[in-house]
Amino acid sequence: MSVYTPVSDRELAAWLANYSVGALLAHEPVHAGIENTNYFVDTTQGRYVLTLFERLPAEELPFYLNLMAHLARHGIPCPAPIADLSDQYLQRLNGKPAALVTRLPGRSLEQPDTGHCAALGALLGRMHLAARSYPAYLENPRGARWWRTAAREVRPHLDAPRLHLLDAELDYQSRQRFPDLPRGPVHADLFRDNALFEDGRISGVIDFYFAGVDTFLYDVAVCVNDWCLVAPDSDRRLAAARTRSLLEACHGVRPFTALEREAWPAMLRAAALRFWLSRLHDFHLPRPGMLVHAHDPEHFREVLALRAGGDCHWID
Amino acid sequence: MSVYTPVSDRELAAWLANYSVGALLAHEPVHAGIENTNYFVDTTQGRYVLTLFERLPAEELPFYLNLMAHLARHGIPCPAPIADLSDQYLQRLNGKPAALVTRLPGRSLEQPDTGHCAALGALLGRMHLAARSYPAYLENPRGARWWRTAAREVRPHLDAPRLHLLDAELDYQSRQRFPDLPRGPVHADLFRDNALFEDGRISGVIDFYFAGVDTFLYDVAVCVNDWCLVAPDSDRRLAAARTRSLLEACHGVRPFTALEREAWPAMLRAAALRFWLSRLHDFHLPRPGMLVHAHDPEHFREVLALRAGGDCHWID
Repeated sequence: MSVYTPVSDRELAAWLANYSVGALLAHEPVHAGIENTNYFVDTTQGRYVLTLFERLPAEELPFYLNLMAHLARHGIPCPAPIADLSDQYLQRLNGKPAALVTRLPGRSLEQPDTGHCAALGALLGRMHLAARSYPAYLENPRGARWWRTAAREVRPHLDAPRLHLLDAELDYQSRQRFPDLPRGPVHADLFRDNALFEDGRISGVIDFYFAGVDTFLYDVAVCVNDWCLVAPDSDRRLAAARTRSLLEACHGVRPFTALEREAWPAMLRAAALRFWLSRLHDFHLPRPGMLVHAHDPEHFREVLALRAGGDCHWID
Repeated sequence: MSVYTPVSDRELAAWLANYSVGALLAHEPVHAGIENTNYFVDTTQGRYVLTLFERLPAEELPFYLNLMAHLARHGIPCPAPIADLSDQYLQRLNGKPAALVTRLPGRSLEQPDTGHCAALGALLGRMHLAARSYPAYLENPRGARWWRTAAREVRPHLDAPRLHLLDAELDYQSRQRFPDLPRGPVHADLFRDNALFEDGRISGVIDFYFAGVDTFLYDVAVCVNDWCLVAPDSDRRLAAARTRSLLEACHGVRPFTALEREAWPAMLRAAALRFWLSRLHDFHLPRPGMLVHAHDPEHFREVLALRAGGDCHWID
């Protein structure tokens, strides 16, 4: 679980008096996520999620909250931050930066089919189009600059074959130059557990706290590497039908450019590298107080090795 | 009905391509409201209302749309305007200013009970608190200035007793001075048909196109004059239990001041006068092209006469 900061009924009821969301009915901790403390909050008006930010840099929080607000008012089903009576999204509670956002209906899927992947692809296209008018800038906090730092820190923990794969990939990526790919604010972490479905539609895209400005295609690659595996636990190759569904639906909303087609194999590898590195880092250098067991880094080592070996798909 | 401007499937689908709300599934005209043309719009993402503004002054539209956006992001269940890809709420369609807003669930009630009136009172309190941080200003378009213009125009159509009631009330109101009542942007038209309920909660407050800056107490009086009648069609006196429920719930969220208590009888009369005048105006001087039958002005003449005769309630 990941509740680092307790909040009592009395504390929450008093805090909510600064909002226009009605009176507190109940709250309960959310046992998912590793970066923040989250509570489900029910009031006489509706259902919300309270997030206490445990380790995100305070100066980055407005980027995330305003991005969610921006996307929500464009019709993207993401958590909408609630402004308090002083018209602020970001407040403090029990010593932590805190925000209240709408709670979205639906459930995440472990085994999406081609229809779900098409729905996700279309949503990615719409989200990228809507994000283009978002004015703030934050570099993808897990981009190439971070790769180099993380790689330096995990190197001592790797055996020779893994070290070779890492160095070869960093070298390969350093030779990729795609300055003209369409860019903008991207989610950058839209794994299956960050999308909610209800009645076959995407009812929610959640957890924007790894968002940053990067290429739209990178966001697509992160999704494909999670949503389109033949069998996530045993066969990390891309399933052709789901991969094509996702890409075609995305292309139908925001047509891919010729440059994006060209960059696709490298982008799948970049997206795999980013998560291999973060999982290696969480595994070998856990932060003090981390309450969850780190994900197995091997999953993304295999994804990376497969993509580097040419396991890609594209649409005709 | 009130569809002044037709919109075809093809026109709407093309227009929606400027938004991030998915693809058009269906649309149908809304046969309610008299000022604008409205359509229910279903897309692959969700449910929306499209409004084409037929006669509201174009320069006032940003006040209404931004107010709805402001209240929605404070947690008030009102239609949230959807921004298009150029980040604008207000667009044009078929020659008319047009906006797309979220469609809220629920149904309006003809016969609210004390629980519904309490829910409305609490919502009014929350809405007023949230509205205080809204920065734009538009004078209530149906305030005292408008009363005098409207009275001048309807005078020739009134018989002697009605003329006497009108003149006496205008004279009475001109002697009321409440400069220190709490003020801000108010809905000013929150009749039963503008509130939606679902599962006993208010799921929507709609139709903000008479909103303007006025006293919060005036907004409360407009509601009480519609929600709390003993029998709207036959006995326009205030029902004590519902009136108290509404006032107490509102007081529980935003405590009334001593001045508000003092102003209450005059405010009930002002709220009745405003609707008597507008109904007289619509009845005797219908605008060309108005497609709906005007409401009977007599209803609000009776409400006004009763309130002027001392039919008020307040909380202890």
